Amino acid sequence: MQKITKILVANRGEIALRIIRACRELEIKSVVVFSEADVNGIWVARADESYPIVGNAIDVYLKYDKIIDIAKRTKCDAIHPGYGFLSESAEFAQACMDKDLIFIGPKPHHIELFGDKMASKVAMKKIGVPVLEGTSSPIIDEEEGRKIALEIGYPIIIKAAFGGGGRGMRIVHFADDFSKMFASATNESIKYFGKGDVFIEKYVQNPRHIEIQIIADKYANVLHLGERDCSIQRRHQKVIEITPSPLLNDEVRQKLCTISVNAMKKLGYESVGTVEFLVDERNNIYFIEMNTRVQVEHPVTEIVTGVDIIQRMIEIAAGDKLKYLQSEIQFRGYAIEFRINSEDPQNNFMPTAGVVKKYLTPGGPGVRLDTSLYSGYETPTCYDSMLAKLIVWALDWDGAVAKARRALDEFHIEGFKTNIPLHREIVRDEGFKEAKFDTGYLDANMNMFNLDAQSSIANEEQTVLKLAEVVKQIKGNNLVKLENDFTLY
Amino acid sequence: MQKITKILVANRGEIALRIIRACRELEIKSVVVFSEADVNGIWVARADESYPIVGNAIDVYLKYDKIIDIAKRTKCDAIHPGYGFLSESAEFAQACMDKDLIFIGPKPHHIELFGDKMASKVAMKKIGVPVLEGTSSPIIDEEEGRKIALEIGYPIIIKAAFGGGGRGMRIVHFADDFSKMFASATNESIKYFGKGDVFIEKYVQNPRHIEIQIIADKYANVLHLGERDCSIQRRHQKVIEITPSPLLNDEVRQKLCTISVNAMKKLGYESVGTVEFLVDERNNIYFIEMNTRVQVEHPVTEIVTGVDIIQRMIEIAAGDKLKYLQSEIQFRGYAIEFRINSEDPQNNFMPTAGVVKKYLTPGGPGVRLDTSLYSGYETPTCYDSMLAKLIVWALDWDGAVAKARRALDEFHIEGFKTNIPLHREIVRDEGFKEAKFDTGYLDANMNMFNLDAQSSIANEEQTVLKLAEVVKQIKGNNLVKLENDFTLY
Repeated sequence: MQKITKILVANRGEIALRIIRACRELEIKSVVVFSEADVNGIWVARADESYPIVGNAIDVYLKYDKIIDIAKRTKCDAIHPGYGFLSESAEFAQACMDKDLIFIGPKPHHIELFGDKMASKVAMKKIGVPVLEGTSSPIIDEEEGRKIALEIGYPIIIKAAFGGGGRGMRIVHFADDFSKMFASATNESIKYFGKGDVFIEKYVQNPRHIEIQIIADKYANVLHLGERDCSIQRRHQKVIEITPSPLLNDEVRQKLCTISVNAMKKLGYESVGTVEFLVDERNNIYFIEMNTRVQVEHPVTEIVTGVDIIQRMIEIAAGDKLKYLQSEIQFRGYAIEFRINSEDPQNNFMPTAGVVKKYLTPGGPGVRLDTSLYSGYETPTCYDSMLAKLIVWALDWDGAVAKARRALDEFHIEGFKTNIPLHREIVRDEGFKEAKFDTGYLDANMNMFNLDAQSSIANEEQTVLKLAEVVKQIKGNNLVKLENDFTLY
Repeated sequence: MQKITKILVANRGEIALRIIRACRELEIKSVVVFSEADVNGIWVARADESYPIVGNAIDVYLKYDKIIDIAKRTKCDAIHPGYGFLSESAEFAQACMDKDLIFIGPKPHHIELFGDKMASKVAMKKIGVPVLEGTSSPIIDEEEGRKIALEIGYPIIIKAAFGGGGRGMRIVHFADDFSKMFASATNESIKYFGKGDVFIEKYVQNPRHIEIQIIADKYANVLHLGERDCSIQRRHQKVIEITPSPLLNDEVRQKLCTISVNAMKKLGYESVGTVEFLVDERNNIYFIEMNTRVQVEHPVTEIVTGVDIIQRMIEIAAGDKLKYLQSEIQFRGYAIEFRINSEDPQNNFMPTAGVVKKYLTPGGPGVRLDTSLYSGYETPTCYDSMLAKLIVWALDWDGAVAKARRALDEFHIEGFKTNIPLHREIVRDEGFKEAKFDTGYLDANMNMFNLDAQSSIANEEQTVLKLAEVVKQIKGNNLVKLENDFTLY
């Protein structure tokens, strides 16, 4: 068994910090590469060694020849790709192996298979997984697309074959709209992914987005770590993730988990991965895609199961057997993750940036914060807007929602706008509290939310100043009723 | 059943914030009283209402007539005393009841009983709990003390009858030293507690300090939430607390829990409480005292059991039945709490104070931070030096120690000295890692620790500055090996 002693972290931001933390706890050295824009990243200071790469801000983290060269020259045994960037590049995984570097992730042919959404549906259908009806090969021709859409039956959805994150994606409810939507989807796909190929599938209305966390070693041991409900999305981008899904019944949960584990066993999958499904109102399930990397939302699963997914992922890559049997995985309580983005919810979620001037973070029981933010940090403008993940936990759903309200109220970032006011509104919404949400929840409710609520950090400061004045005035007077504006929440 | 809708929090600092958080999650309004020295306390801003009380800094939190008056005038139903201050005053508990306020804690006669260490040992012995041999009534006369000490047999320990926290406490190994030590203990007791009464008991050498967390409702339902190992102490003050105790065997654990639950059932105890024992090397157990309040170290139990002790304590006081059966309490993993104090470990732990200039807190998986610190806060000099509690968790002991190392390395407070460097040394000590510690561990090892290690915050800043320079110099040069001093840990 090859032992990993030094890992190059080919990523940035909170996930780079997350991997460095796992390395430190496993007594593995960490190396990062970083762009000029990231020179103030706290993960750059926290890694054991840090190497700048010159280049365009995003390109730096995609330059895999340079990254592999640095890994070899710094005597790393392994590379952890995090999520995004090179994490789902089969070529990169193969290039690592060719240079005797362990790629901390699945085998290249699995990355390749699941990178192609149509091929992965064909493969999953072949081994008995119910998939969403749709094209089995990429469509470029509009007429062919129109024919297939009619066969599947409207509503249908057009998706970029080589894309993700909601880009190049269009829902079509009526045959009359097909031409316009097809053109719009293919154009966006070309713009973002270089290829205009799309596929067409059945559009499931009001589904919940449920994904199963899989962890598998090199010895055919495959476990699930339960599901995550990622239905709270904005334009097909996940915003809030929850485990367990509060309205999923145990029968459907067990079915999804069993199907996912069996599929991964049949395919000989190893490392961590996430099998994503849509679940409709009658509990029909449809496989939609598989993510062959650690997910942004892995922390909710870590809290509920107690399993450190990143640590176990590293050990599996080193050739370790899984530490647990399925029966030893205990699920306890509810966890909710809130993605904190530098964007302005009052201005169509335009990206924001700036220097973190005031910074108060939530703490206490049942609160986890994964972030590379710190007071004085200037956020770069060239990367993803997700700056922090706030994760809360409680023994029951109502407790978790109450915890979320409290923790979000405590979270103050001054210097630029964030989506914290949106999260604060969501956790106060009766629909959310009753777990009545599907993937359409956020779009349907957005204009009901009051996003004008100011961050109360300014109020807190004023309060403290006013209190100081009050104290000065009350010598000899033992009780002063403070005005209403002194009460913050 | 009386419902609690508004609570006055008669405390300050992290425990006031902890209680306010619990209130907020239970949708109960919170009111705080505060001293002039605490005007910048973040809990003062976070409470729903805040009222200054004029007076000497410590006295403010002891002025129970004023506190009760404010509670009545602000229409509170209940008062939570936290720990310290009025939390173990039977008089205060009774005064609350007399004014129709719920005292969130045990009944006054239990507070009174356990406030008197000798009486509580007599009571516990009577119901079959093994107690530490010692005087059954307070000693003031030296000759009487000398006679009792001879009967018990040296080594013995002299303790202030009305004290705590290591004040008025002396260990006597030889009869010749008795006079000197007796005088010194009684003098210190008079100075700190107003009374020179002491008691004398058998001194158990190298014991572990193990305490059992009890939670009991008004309907004779009494549960234990496992034990905490509080053996890591400096001069009888707890510094690190752990659950479960890594070297305690299951038989002894079960015995301690069963004895504690049965004793509390027999006494009709309600609310939370902690039964403290010494356990010697041959697993003999000795009851030493009972704390009739929430403990500083309750978070480790919360993490391992998932039970929110403060929330349940409030519900019980309101007349709710316990939510769980003993069989439903799941224990998972290991938690360690580190008390972060403003004191200088290189200068005999002299208290320090100042403005928090730079503040980087640990985060990520398995980390909980309970603190009222924030960047820019000026610590008052007139209160206890404990400013933060860092709690870490992992599924196994080795993982928890690794987590502690990582989290303590990430914790940077600039502006005044803290005991973080001491904690960093402890978690790197082989004896600690192997869980070979008793109550003498810290004193025995103190001079082996290297407390000169600088907080690395300065280094982090330098690193970032140097990296920026390096990046400027390397346009066109894609790999720069950074000097060794760029590697931080």
